[in-house]
Amino acid sequence: MPSLDDLNRAARKDFVAALGAVFAHAPRVAEAAAARRPFATVEGLLAALREALEAAPDAERRALLTNQPECAGLDRLSEAEHARFAALTAAYTDRFGFPFILCVQRHGRAALLRACAARLASDPETERATAQDEVLRIAAIRLCALVEGAGMPRTTGRISTHVLDTVTGRPAPGVEVELHEWVSDTETVLIARAETNADGRTDAPLVGGRPVPIAPYDLRFRIGDHFRATHPGLPEPPFLDIVSLRFGVADPEGHYHVPLVASPWSYQTYRGS
Amino acid sequence: MPSLDDLNRAARKDFVAALGAVFAHAPRVAEAAAARRPFATVEGLLAALREALEAAPDAERRALLTNQPECAGLDRLSEAEHARFAALTAAYTDRFGFPFILCVQRHGRAALLRACAARLASDPETERATAQDEVLRIAAIRLCALVEGAGMPRTTGRISTHVLDTVTGRPAPGVEVELHEWVSDTETVLIARAETNADGRTDAPLVGGRPVPIAPYDLRFRIGDHFRATHPGLPEPPFLDIVSLRFGVADPEGHYHVPLVASPWSYQTYRGS
Amino acid sequence: MPSLDDLNRAARKDFVAALGAVFAHAPRVAEAAAARRPFATVEGLLAALREALEAAPDAERRALLTNQPECAGLDRLSEAEHARFAALTAAYTDRFGFPFILCVQRHGRAALLRACAARLASDPETERATAQDEVLRIAAIRLCALVEGAGMPRTTGRISTHVLDTVTGRPAPGVEVELHEWVSDTETVLIARAETNADGRTDAPLVGGRPVPIAPYDLRFRIGDHFRATHPGLPEPPFLDIVSLRFGVADPEGHYHVPLVASPWSYQTYRGS
Amino acid sequence: MPSLDDLNRAARKDFVAALGAVFAHAPRVAEAAAARRPFATVEGLLAALREALEAAPDAERRALLTNQPECAGLDRLSEAEHARFAALTAAYTDRFGFPFILCVQRHGRAALLRACAARLASDPETERATAQDEVLRIAAIRLCALVEGAGMPRTTGRISTHVLDTVTGRPAPGVEVELHEWVSDTETVLIARAETNADGRTDAPLVGGRPVPIAPYDLRFRIGDHFRATHPGLPEPPFLDIVSLRFGVADPEGHYHVPLVASPWSYQTYRGS
Repeated sequence: MPSLDDLNRAARKDFVAALGAVFAHAPRVAEAAAARRPFATVEGLLAALREALEAAPDAERRALLTNQPECAGLDRLSEAEHARFAALTAAYTDRFGFPFILCVQRHGRAALLRACAARLASDPETERATAQDEVLRIAAIRLCALVEGAGMPRTTGRISTHVLDTVTGRPAPGVEVELHEWVSDTETVLIARAETNADGRTDAPLVGGRPVPIAPYDLRFRIGDHFRATHPGLPEPPFLDIVSLRFGVADPEGHYHVPLVASPWSYQTYRGS
Repeated sequence: MPSLDDLNRAARKDFVAALGAVFAHAPRVAEAAAARRPFATVEGLLAALREALEAAPDAERRALLTNQPECAGLDRLSEAEHARFAALTAAYTDRFGFPFILCVQRHGRAALLRACAARLASDPETERATAQDEVLRIAAIRLCALVEGAGMPRTTGRISTHVLDTVTGRPAPGVEVELHEWVSDTETVLIARAETNADGRTDAPLVGGRPVPIAPYDLRFRIGDHFRATHPGLPEPPFLDIVSLRFGVADPEGHYHVPLVASPWSYQTYRGS
Repeated sequence: MPSLDDLNRAARKDFVAALGAVFAHAPRVAEAAAARRPFATVEGLLAALREALEAAPDAERRALLTNQPECAGLDRLSEAEHARFAALTAAYTDRFGFPFILCVQRHGRAALLRACAARLASDPETERATAQDEVLRIAAIRLCALVEGAGMPRTTGRISTHVLDTVTGRPAPGVEVELHEWVSDTETVLIARAETNADGRTDAPLVGGRPVPIAPYDLRFRIGDHFRATHPGLPEPPFLDIVSLRFGVADPEGHYHVPLVASPWSYQTYRGS
Repeated sequence: MPSLDDLNRAARKDFVAALGAVFAHAPRVAEAAAARRPFATVEGLLAALREALEAAPDAERRALLTNQPECAGLDRLSEAEHARFAALTAAYTDRFGFPFILCVQRHGRAALLRACAARLASDPETERATAQDEVLRIAAIRLCALVEGAGMPRTTGRISTHVLDTVTGRPAPGVEVELHEWVSDTETVLIARAETNADGRTDAPLVGGRPVPIAPYDLRFRIGDHFRATHPGLPEPPFLDIVSLRFGVADPEGHYHVPLVASPWSYQTYRGS
């Protein structure tokens, strides 16, 4: 991967070649940015690309939208959702003259369909601005995959947790944790499974290094097993066995730290930091 | 319903007639208790009935078990559970020579099957004692339905809740609450639905006036709607929308007060009093 | 104590005699109210007295203020506070032409001095209205002490607590609780001391049956002793020994329920209901 | 400061000279350890010193105790405490024949006097072992100040905090925090003052880089100022103004993370990690 310094020093042609994929079908955007080098940060480079896009002639910007590929990565949709999505996007292309563009990595299944339905109802001018915003979000993620350097744009979020046992005042190790996306009242999808370590945390974030899809989630802790092992004499079924923390993510680039602070008879959670 | 005083003063024959249903097929139990009148409390009357039963000849006590009807009120079981239960109880009768006796009101669906399977594996002497204990639990409930007076036996439990909004320091009114029995990871059954009143409580307990069946439960609060209405500017989906408190009941005669103390970004619960 | 019914039926003269003390030096107020009988509630009677006062000629209302006695019940002030209060009230009488009137039962020591200083700085018209409001607050309390009946005015508040042990999921009995008024960083005054009962509550509210003086308070729980007795093996000094909940009361007629929900390593509180 | 590697390679004489101060008056301890080089960790070096001390002839070990200087760093004691401490240590020397030895950095004022009184009452054999343990604790701290390398002995603890606002789900910046040692009901001593940063934490731990003296502490947060600024319309005095978390430290080498999770009407704390 080239560094930002490499790009700052590269021949104009090489710079454009290296960044061509950021805005597919709009090579002049990279060319305009090339002229503004050097950049102190990757954020600065992204801003130059955005400004170049915004300064481009209307026809060029429209062409960028028109030439966007269809949303990819949708195999996670159910058959019914797929059919609904296909119908919505067909109506969308009909209505606006360009395909439905969305940074799909930032959306859970329900949010994806909701966004599509909502945008189908918006007016053409607003919608064109929204589509271009999404192009820019996709571009930011692509840029981060292509270049490394100081001041990277914030394109990833995180879901993390830790478990604290208030009977002992110690982190709870060995607690099985599962993160599910809450697709509907009848369907949840397992996203990650982990076990807390000696520090009561999972070795890696449950979601990290990518945007956190906008969705409701369900974070489940087998805390009953922990207390069965450490606190003999609890009734069966115990008051707390599987604790389920349901929370929504609206900011895919945010950090959602969702701890569980528990005794056998009480617990609390909060959005932590 | 006769009062305890009425029973204390009744002719022996009337006393026996009034209480005959407490231990069906064992009229001599009520007769023996009649001789020990007066009773200061219904608890005292129940204790006398229990002692009379325990003092009865072995054959009579065995007959009491043998003549118990099959467990009733099992229409809430699924077809598969019913089949499993029928198989277990048939094996049980075979093994022990009397039908499977259980105070079914005290057991959720999963607990019912678990109890049956566990007791099928116990030794005959232990099992006979367990069966007699269950007869006594059933008798206690029947007695409470037949007599009223001081010192009633504790045969009912309670599930209650209240919702507190820590942004305003006030009870949260108008919050929709649902109590579900957690039958399995794929089936929950709605037990009660209510809305919190001005005091953040439900007008009546979610379960009350009867034993609380041994089971895991899921208490769900539409707290997101409350904060949408009172706290504009929250993201969508909100961090908290439906909060789900999963807790187990092991003591059917206990009071499970399970409050929700919440802000838009945090909540806690505990077994309260 | 006469009932509201008695007063509704009493001779006019007796009604006026009975309620004369409510507005000392303003007998015509009670006379005007007498003509509006009967009253369905004591609140209604109070409203009639208030309206009669407000309808009285200006001179009469001013006389009511002028003839008010000096604030009583101030022996709780320190010598320095007394001196400061005397200076402030002297300046007040000078400035406004009537004595400083305040329902002192509604104010802690610091709040009393703060109120006096603040009101000394207000303009005469506002201050006259404020003084009359205080006369009405005093009148409401007096009326509640003189009559009993339906619809009593709300003139009392409450401070209460309960202690919950989240290790056992049970109320914590036998916990010594002390309520202190926080007068300054160097002085607190013990207001009430109690021990929690089997239900984790105190037998009576820590403050009740009277207004809760506006003040910061410090509610201290000897929770360390509880956990020493129930949870062997804690270090010494324990993480939690005396828990101190500092909270402010701004609404003397409010109910401040301030619970302690604790394990040996965690606790929480909130304004409950 | 020499590195562990330097010491591993140093001439025996230089090694002994470098570590002489670890056990003053017992040069043979360092000599015995020198013969066991090289050490992979500073922990390993400390263990070798300890074993050398334990293997030394009884007279030498006693001499080590006898030659210890009086406890230093006691100027923080009040006059009365000083007098009490002087009396206790004089009695101690009388009784045991060597001065009272204690790693004073690990003890708050009350704990220091309590330890002295308790040890005065112990039997000579136990007390000699206790004194030697304290010599080793002092030695560990000295060693850490003299050498640096892998596997440092754990001789420091930490008190830290963070403040979370549950109304916004964000860290609370700009909150003034004070840590006081709770010497007695009438005396607290300010240990540290800090302000929370954008992450709701203090830039440095409130205590760190040294043992945390055994003592009760009071951690005070001016949370009322935070909510006055962010949450208009709260009453005055507010329900929460200064929150005071009183907690005890029994493990001077432990990490005491004591967060405040608060709304204007509720808060919680726990020993975190």
